[in-house]
Amino acid sequence: MTDNRDISYFFKPKSIAIIGASPTQGKVGNTVLTNIIESGYQGKIYPINPKSEEILGYKAFKNVLDVPNQIEIAIFAIPSKFVALTAEECGKKSVKGLIVISAGFKEVGGKGVEREEELIRIAKKYHMRILGPNCLGFIGINYNGSFAAETPKKGHIAMISQSGAMLTGMMDYSMNQSFGFSCNISLGNKADLGAVDFIEYLAEDEDTKVILCYLESIKDGERFLKVVPKTARKKPIVILKSGVSEAGARAATSHTGALAGADIAYDLAFEKSGVIRAKSIEDLFNYGEIFLFQPIPKENSFAIITNAGGPGIVATDAFEREGLKFAQFSESILHDLRDNLPLEAAIFNPVDIVGDASPERYKFALKTIFGLNRENNDAKHDSNSITTSGALLIVTPQAQTKPTEVAKIIYEISSKFLTDKPIVCSFIGEKSISEGRNYLKQNHIPCYHFPDKAAHSLKTLVKYGEYLNTKPIDKLEIPEYDVDKEKVKEIFKNARNDGRIVLLSHETSEAFRCYGIKSPRSRLARTPNKSMELQKEFGKSVLKIVCPQIIHKTDVGGIALNIETEQQAYEAYIQIIDNAKKFGPQNAKIYGCEVQEMIDFKKESKVNELIIGMSRDPGFGPMLMIGTGGIYANFMKDISFALSYKFSKKDAKKTLQKTKIYRLLQGVRGEPSSDIDAIIDVLLRLSQLVKDFPEIVELDINPLLSFIKKYSAVDIKITITR
Amino acid sequence: MTDNRDISYFFKPKSIAIIGASPTQGKVGNTVLTNIIESGYQGKIYPINPKSEEILGYKAFKNVLDVPNQIEIAIFAIPSKFVALTAEECGKKSVKGLIVISAGFKEVGGKGVEREEELIRIAKKYHMRILGPNCLGFIGINYNGSFAAETPKKGHIAMISQSGAMLTGMMDYSMNQSFGFSCNISLGNKADLGAVDFIEYLAEDEDTKVILCYLESIKDGERFLKVVPKTARKKPIVILKSGVSEAGARAATSHTGALAGADIAYDLAFEKSGVIRAKSIEDLFNYGEIFLFQPIPKENSFAIITNAGGPGIVATDAFEREGLKFAQFSESILHDLRDNLPLEAAIFNPVDIVGDASPERYKFALKTIFGLNRENNDAKHDSNSITTSGALLIVTPQAQTKPTEVAKIIYEISSKFLTDKPIVCSFIGEKSISEGRNYLKQNHIPCYHFPDKAAHSLKTLVKYGEYLNTKPIDKLEIPEYDVDKEKVKEIFKNARNDGRIVLLSHETSEAFRCYGIKSPRSRLARTPNKSMELQKEFGKSVLKIVCPQIIHKTDVGGIALNIETEQQAYEAYIQIIDNAKKFGPQNAKIYGCEVQEMIDFKKESKVNELIIGMSRDPGFGPMLMIGTGGIYANFMKDISFALSYKFSKKDAKKTLQKTKIYRLLQGVRGEPSSDIDAIIDVLLRLSQLVKDFPEIVELDINPLLSFIKKYSAVDIKITITR
Repeated sequence: MTDNRDISYFFKPKSIAIIGASPTQGKVGNTVLTNIIESGYQGKIYPINPKSEEILGYKAFKNVLDVPNQIEIAIFAIPSKFVALTAEECGKKSVKGLIVISAGFKEVGGKGVEREEELIRIAKKYHMRILGPNCLGFIGINYNGSFAAETPKKGHIAMISQSGAMLTGMMDYSMNQSFGFSCNISLGNKADLGAVDFIEYLAEDEDTKVILCYLESIKDGERFLKVVPKTARKKPIVILKSGVSEAGARAATSHTGALAGADIAYDLAFEKSGVIRAKSIEDLFNYGEIFLFQPIPKENSFAIITNAGGPGIVATDAFEREGLKFAQFSESILHDLRDNLPLEAAIFNPVDIVGDASPERYKFALKTIFGLNRENNDAKHDSNSITTSGALLIVTPQAQTKPTEVAKIIYEISSKFLTDKPIVCSFIGEKSISEGRNYLKQNHIPCYHFPDKAAHSLKTLVKYGEYLNTKPIDKLEIPEYDVDKEKVKEIFKNARNDGRIVLLSHETSEAFRCYGIKSPRSRLARTPNKSMELQKEFGKSVLKIVCPQIIHKTDVGGIALNIETEQQAYEAYIQIIDNAKKFGPQNAKIYGCEVQEMIDFKKESKVNELIIGMSRDPGFGPMLMIGTGGIYANFMKDISFALSYKFSKKDAKKTLQKTKIYRLLQGVRGEPSSDIDAIIDVLLRLSQLVKDFPEIVELDINPLLSFIKKYSAVDIKITITR
Repeated sequence: MTDNRDISYFFKPKSIAIIGASPTQGKVGNTVLTNIIESGYQGKIYPINPKSEEILGYKAFKNVLDVPNQIEIAIFAIPSKFVALTAEECGKKSVKGLIVISAGFKEVGGKGVEREEELIRIAKKYHMRILGPNCLGFIGINYNGSFAAETPKKGHIAMISQSGAMLTGMMDYSMNQSFGFSCNISLGNKADLGAVDFIEYLAEDEDTKVILCYLESIKDGERFLKVVPKTARKKPIVILKSGVSEAGARAATSHTGALAGADIAYDLAFEKSGVIRAKSIEDLFNYGEIFLFQPIPKENSFAIITNAGGPGIVATDAFEREGLKFAQFSESILHDLRDNLPLEAAIFNPVDIVGDASPERYKFALKTIFGLNRENNDAKHDSNSITTSGALLIVTPQAQTKPTEVAKIIYEISSKFLTDKPIVCSFIGEKSISEGRNYLKQNHIPCYHFPDKAAHSLKTLVKYGEYLNTKPIDKLEIPEYDVDKEKVKEIFKNARNDGRIVLLSHETSEAFRCYGIKSPRSRLARTPNKSMELQKEFGKSVLKIVCPQIIHKTDVGGIALNIETEQQAYEAYIQIIDNAKKFGPQNAKIYGCEVQEMIDFKKESKVNELIIGMSRDPGFGPMLMIGTGGIYANFMKDISFALSYKFSKKDAKKTLQKTKIYRLLQGVRGEPSSDIDAIIDVLLRLSQLVKDFPEIVELDINPLLSFIKKYSAVDIKITITR
């Protein structure tokens, strides 16, 4: 809202005023002040309360203006109707940031909406930033500026939540976890600051290593796409975005008054930005833990060590499901394993060191697969042959198993030798192995009850590693085609002047031609003579009635195919206009006939029908779509989406590759390939068109006929804003 | 293996001999005896050990034959090489069941395989049944006949596991759960008894209310399909089947020497049998808990009550994902809620009773949505209007929340008034709400950390309820068509005599005709004159070379289309034979030409290409397939499978309905419907054909052309065994 992007004062304020600080226990203003004091805050504390001289040992002031020194942030815990007045005073006092805990704003509708707007106005006027209103507050590394019942553990995870209750639940849940927080931010109504603002700031925050978010909507999609990828290159960002379902979206609307966008757009935006999407709160925490404590693997190549076959199979299934790959051990490693493990052991990955495995055997196996055991064997390990980039260790409680000792050995080897290789564990059971599991967790090695979660976490590391290896979004080469923008502007203007928002067929062809997208030649004839002239120019043609009121042209006899002579064109024109007058609606405004070049695709040895389209997401802008076209497009649902934002050639190709029809375009059973580059070119040109013209609200090509050496966008529909 | 299906002696043996009972702590034979004694077993105990007079206070015998009384079961804890001899003695002693814990059988290969076969032979001879070998043992309700480190809690869940280590882990995990076990069965190598045998028995076992299984393979698919559905109607069966992935299947093979079937067949078999498939060990336990403690809902119609909006949205998402439906509250319920809840509350489902919700408010809301609160309101509740068939209650720890008290109220209302309505909870957090969560769990109300698991469990109840409402598998009407089986037998015989296992085109047509499946008329002509005769009979025809060695007929000039006169047929025959001799391989055995009626489908106003096929699963028998056909069938992958076992008309329809092409067959955009009944008929006739002829190993129709009023199976491939 304002240009002051430095919001560090929320994270480490030098001074805090508590508006509505109260001596009465149970009141929000009392809880906030208590939290600030008990969290060991070292800065200045100014309770503001017109009725008290002193609260909890701190001198109280009637008004922020009475405070003799500077105030960096003010926390509001007063009824919403008094907020504006005090905010104004804060502005005069040059307060930098407001944390408005008070509820009774946009979320209650009516008067509340006005109050929120007024608050925004005041903040803008004085260049103050707002967190909230209607939030739990802000917990930084050196203060608890919230009314939460407890202060969570300190650590390196930043947590941002759109729901205060969710944040409360998550903080409570975290008390038993092995990690703590650099900050806990409750966004509330997001009158000013939203998740993106904090994510932007946190990129440079030294206390934060991982960012976790619970969000129900994202305010400014375009800024998200601009800002978030930059932070995501520096530290992992995990977002649980709820309200994905239609019903969920409805609940989200009623909850915060925010409009939840279509979920597909979020998936695309997260993928584009390098954000890991969590599907549940449990995932959110599991991802946070693994990102915080384990390194990103160099490759997708892992080993499993287990003391039982069954769980090994369960883990193998999970690996397959997640797309995790098994490391291939070198000959010398296999030798070592064979020579030193019992005969019943399985030495190939997954390595089964069998039921009576001692801690020492775990140690041997773990060191060996990572090539750390050269002393055991004369054969020299070729360090290039160590392709294992991480491991999952499984422990089941059997007679000789000593889970805690195994845990200690895993930690020892991992911390000494495997600092660049992620290690995760699954200790199956509860009673006899929870001590070992807890030991590992406390020592920052994620340990799960069952192998499937472990595999899921490893996969998340791999996925983030892959993102880090992609080209940064601002380095992508986005083609800029030489187009005739002015001409398209004119077409749109003419349509609007004519009271139309759906373009006529010859207009769409013309607009596409201006952007270098090929479609059958097509022009409007207003007289029979003009249609003769156009037929002569085009050769074999189709004549179609041009009349916005006639939807189903065939039904009124408004189409004539296979027009091969000028004479036929003349006659067809007369007949069609006649039919339209006779069978069309009363109010029909007849423009004439469109003469369109007839694509004789039966001559082509390979034809595929594609659908290409664009719709606009309210947050993230134009979304492109491509897939199997034709009259069955809606039923085949073989389609793939992409955001048009920073849409590179590589993106276009990837989008097409996700469809099933891509394989057909490549050519199967000895067929030649279709002109795939041309199709990619269409997507890129289309992306430029919809970026240049935000007034295009919807666009459809169906079918775009794809041939071996060319294509033709046969049927195009463009809808613009009024 | 034998007919003695009564295996009750494993569950409640009157007397047990422990072969290899040992006084030495740490030995398996000592652990087993100790477990039997410490589990409070009340029957006779006979330690067998040639070197001891007495073990752990029990008189020991040198040999089972020395035992003066009857022995019902014998547990083997001796080296594998001694097992056969002792088994023989057990046979002579009329022991009923053997629990062979000893390893060193099939799982080690070589000699072990022989040992297992010998053991089976002996058991068969004396009508004894075997559990194992290579297993953990058997834990019944009144004895622990295993070498597990601890005896799990008693209760009403039967647990069957193919992996001993997995069972150990699961039992250990269960110690902190709210339920216990009626039995824990470790299957080991399944030399004799497998999961199906125990599932069959457990149908009538009064101690068992739910059956949980961990399996890696199923030995006898057909018996599974016959037996399991019957048990599934009496009590829920949940199976975690691992080894689903290709890599996983490989691991399963090496693990138990069992061949894991294709996973799709398991999905189909489970669905057909009413088995709930768990995807993880966590699911297995969650399903076990909810089935044990909560009733099956009457309808898919649930309510959510929450004290915070965010978790309500998360839960709504989960409901949508799982296909759970929201109950619509009646006007009077909505009135009650509006009149008695705070203004900020959301009264529509999900009901948000807001952050300061007291236990009393939870009570009010819960009673009201189930119509239990009439005293609060003059308006009479119409009990027919109470459509809520269960509820999810969400608690987040906020300032005024009293989680334990809320838990107590939920239990009170649930146990008093809602005994036929499933109630699940999600208490979000850990520290401040674990007491409440534990209270609920102990009182048999499943309570999860997060709402998604709760929704998942409810869905499982709904799914099982749906199964109970289907027609029992043995009541299904399976059509029996009047077919010419003898003729098909002859065709297969001729092909075999001719050294072929892939039928020739005119043979497949003939076989299909015998089973009432229509394909273009087609016969073999061995002379030009015969081809003239056939052309005259068929009208417009196609001539194709008949020669098993020629794969690509077109390439050698082996096909002539559009034969409209007898003269053309004559000439085409000569030309084709000539081409085949000239361009075909040296060894080509030329049978003549197939004359096939030419289907002129361009005359049809609607044509769809289908693929229909059959492959055989090693366990579950013939699997039928239907979907989008044509040359792109492999790329579209629009296919749906069904087991041919007890394949009813309803099954056929359901299978077709799962494909995308079904919508096209129904007719879209004003098109008429295709002849769907005819296609269903083809599937049913095909099912009969592959059941009648187990020698058909593979069968493909691609395409089957579907028209508005008929169809034609144009290209058929049948492969038979030698």
